[in-house]
Amino acid sequence: MAAVNQVYIAIIGAGGVGKCFLSQLQALAARKPSPKLSLCYISTSRKALYNVDYSPVSIDGVTESLASSTQAPPPLSQVIDYLAAAPAKVVLVDNTSSQDVADAYPLALSRGLSIVTPNKKAFSGSYKLWQDIFTAAATSGAKVYHESSVGAGLPVISTLKDLVETGDKVTKIEGVFSGTMSFLFNSFAPTEGQGGKWSEEVKKAKSLGYTEPDPRDDLNGLDVARKLTILARLAGLPVESPTSFPTQSLIPKELESCSTGDEFLEKLPAFDQQMEDIKAAAEKAGKVVRFVGSIDVATQQVKVGLEQFDRSHPIASLKGSDNIISFYTERYGNNPLIIQGAGAGGDVTAMGVTGDLIKVLSQIA
Amino acid sequence: MAAVNQVYIAIIGAGGVGKCFLSQLQALAARKPSPKLSLCYISTSRKALYNVDYSPVSIDGVTESLASSTQAPPPLSQVIDYLAAAPAKVVLVDNTSSQDVADAYPLALSRGLSIVTPNKKAFSGSYKLWQDIFTAAATSGAKVYHESSVGAGLPVISTLKDLVETGDKVTKIEGVFSGTMSFLFNSFAPTEGQGGKWSEEVKKAKSLGYTEPDPRDDLNGLDVARKLTILARLAGLPVESPTSFPTQSLIPKELESCSTGDEFLEKLPAFDQQMEDIKAAAEKAGKVVRFVGSIDVATQQVKVGLEQFDRSHPIASLKGSDNIISFYTERYGNNPLIIQGAGAGGDVTAMGVTGDLIKVLSQIA
Repeated sequence: MAAVNQVYIAIIGAGGVGKCFLSQLQALAARKPSPKLSLCYISTSRKALYNVDYSPVSIDGVTESLASSTQAPPPLSQVIDYLAAAPAKVVLVDNTSSQDVADAYPLALSRGLSIVTPNKKAFSGSYKLWQDIFTAAATSGAKVYHESSVGAGLPVISTLKDLVETGDKVTKIEGVFSGTMSFLFNSFAPTEGQGGKWSEEVKKAKSLGYTEPDPRDDLNGLDVARKLTILARLAGLPVESPTSFPTQSLIPKELESCSTGDEFLEKLPAFDQQMEDIKAAAEKAGKVVRFVGSIDVATQQVKVGLEQFDRSHPIASLKGSDNIISFYTERYGNNPLIIQGAGAGGDVTAMGVTGDLIKVLSQIA
Repeated sequence: MAAVNQVYIAIIGAGGVGKCFLSQLQALAARKPSPKLSLCYISTSRKALYNVDYSPVSIDGVTESLASSTQAPPPLSQVIDYLAAAPAKVVLVDNTSSQDVADAYPLALSRGLSIVTPNKKAFSGSYKLWQDIFTAAATSGAKVYHESSVGAGLPVISTLKDLVETGDKVTKIEGVFSGTMSFLFNSFAPTEGQGGKWSEEVKKAKSLGYTEPDPRDDLNGLDVARKLTILARLAGLPVESPTSFPTQSLIPKELESCSTGDEFLEKLPAFDQQMEDIKAAAEKAGKVVRFVGSIDVATQQVKVGLEQFDRSHPIASLKGSDNIISFYTERYGNNPLIIQGAGAGGDVTAMGVTGDLIKVLSQIA
């Protein structure tokens, strides 16, 4: 049997973020006095590691044990049954970006499993899934935290929740929500100097690992639209889906049908002039162009796309692949509350997950 | 008897921040489903309102009831006895800036009372008091939260704690920690244009309510030194006191002995040239001067005073009376995690207190 206040941790996903999380979890579990947690389940899409009697899986060396496991992961509903029957409280850490796992959150929460995750899909899918998730959590008392679903480990979700819960009125949220887009525009249209050709900046970003394997998965704006959906809902707007408001895609129509990302990159230079014209128009107005998302709470308008900013504007003078998020509220008046820093990367994304786990442990342990 | 999971709130202080907090507490208590909290004690330095049988004090109209109360506040030790004997968990909200109340935290925490407060004195006094506070909390399990002790409602303390608790290594913290100093230098040495005379900017700041009644209480740098002490300790440095590291005072030696703030302001213009020289030296280097605090964790150096910054630096381009705090860490690399916004004012300070209260309720209710 589990010790009093013991909490079981179950983890799905051991990719980039998952590996960084495991390393942070090892450090957390080794701390003195050690938090009363033990690992009872871990799986990738092909392998799993757990014991039917819930005896702990060793956190040290778990990546290696998982690699040599011969167990396949059971269906999700069986995993939830197994966890719900555990002799202690359970936190399910979803380190995937899987819609299937996200769709199982309402069931998991209704069975009393708390959830922490960087997976955007659950909170930026249909509004019904959003409602089902938070209704299930409110009914069972299980917790659900998802700091890293926007801005990785930056305190974006927690700050917005604090503003709303303490009774401030958020009037507008605006920012750069994609590390890829940040890097591309900070290089393509810098506040000082000329910047390179658009297609070359996209290639450079890909070679530096700043884009998805197919850069169109960044350039279509959907990733930013998903983050805006989450923030808008937290601010009280019942946004139906990430495709229910205008999002500007930076993929030329003619290249949408390219069969591979490489083909896309090969053909992109033919469209450089379009982006050059956009940059020149901004320059003519003494400004620079940036790819931003904004939420106007009063008019319920959410939009994602290119906008012009003064060179001295914080959004214009962003560095590298940093994100910046500005919260305009009644209490903060004309000068917004601003959060800025790396919004992508394994370690900082995992940090948001670990931070959430610590918060859930403080509430349920 | 109190209902299951009921939490009693006790409040000391009903000044500027205290009044804003009461208004936020009213909104919180009126929320549906309502949190299970009731007010069992409130006092100012001269009046108190409570019932020996712990029957609730109405939160609505409490400012008026307190004003017409004929009870004097009992000695602090008696208040703690009263609260520790309550038939439910208690959160003590200290909305004063009193050293006496701060000195009583270890006793209150050891008796199981949780504490939320914007009061800097407890966390920036002697290192022994700091240790006593956190030892008492760890032993009894009571919680202590003080977000508004640095940067008002900005998520500064919570972010630093998240960084440390998830295992990041904070290497440096730097920023503008005083709304008064921010306003003064943004006006005196703006990134564009000339700025006014130093003594005139100080008078303007006072007339706008941006300074303490005696502006020397801002200009001596102690307020910033207190905030740096708190952050340095959270980052792991055993700082002995807010006077145990170099802090630059902007009060000319000759004016330290002025008997009133008005006399000080009258004599200040005679020293304008000193500040003008400092501004000119920065300009000559193409920079502007700002009053900042910094903590170098590796070398254990903490310091507060004037420094020069490039005009494009986020610290230089701050607006109004905003604070900015940059966390340099191993995970965030060269580009720091930055938090920026209003760092003073009743509403935003109270917001930090209310946010802390909500966090404590989620853990103890």
